[in-house]
Amino acid sequence: MNYYFSRFISCTFDEAIANVTESLKNEGFGIISEIRMHEKLNEKLGIDFKRYTILGACNPTYAFQALKLEDKIGAMLPCNVLVIEQEEGKIEVAAINPEASMQSIVNPDLQDVAAKVTVSLKKAVENI
Amino acid sequence: MNYYFSRFISCTFDEAIANVTESLKNEGFGIISEIRMHEKLNEKLGIDFKRYTILGACNPTYAFQALKLEDKIGAMLPCNVLVIEQEEGKIEVAAINPEASMQSIVNPDLQDVAAKVTVSLKKAVENI
Repeated sequence: MNYYFSRFISCTFDEAIANVTESLKNEGFGIISEIRMHEKLNEKLGIDFKRYTILGACNPTYAFQALKLEDKIGAMLPCNVLVIEQEEGKIEVAAINPEASMQSIVNPDLQDVAAKVTVSLKKAVENI
Repeated sequence: MNYYFSRFISCTFDEAIANVTESLKNEGFGIISEIRMHEKLNEKLGIDFKRYTILGACNPTYAFQALKLEDKIGAMLPCNVLVIEQEEGKIEVAAINPEASMQSIVNPDLQDVAAKVTVSLKKAVENI
């Protein structure tokens, strides 16, 4: 099982951020963190890196269910959705696959929640 | 292999945030995101949840190494460090174990970086 699922879309980087945010919202996910990795790498290491943003997506209902089942699940929250400018106008969107990333946690009830989140995230990525 | 390592410290919640941030800094990690989960849950679901903050810790050198080896590793970045008020004055600090969480990624070179990050994170938690 791959740890992420992704697709390419043709638009500008900023349009991709807006469209991904909207599509996630339609599946009940809000963006609760945004890390512009290219800016961090430039600031800290002076490196010129492709535009690479990590959006932290959170569906509060699922997050609360998961927290009740597994107190330290916050170590794997929020669900990251990457927006990467692989070429100008060619944007890759990649979302974490919670079913894969949470495999190291022995908790069958949590796996059920992870499966539901995975379905919603996949749908959000498909519908961008 | 557990997906996190944790310890308890006796101090206020705000002191814990400051001390964890300082200890991470000493190991080369900056905090690049901060999610106050209790506030989000209260805002979105009206739930009264214990104070639970997710600090996103990033060591830029290791992050860059990881990104060169595995383009979509951002789906698992930054390394989360939880600060949880389990009781008043009794704070649990729990850091993700990157070696465990990245097990689903088939990439031996990445596992080497994950092992180094794990050592640094463990040291930061021990030295709070």
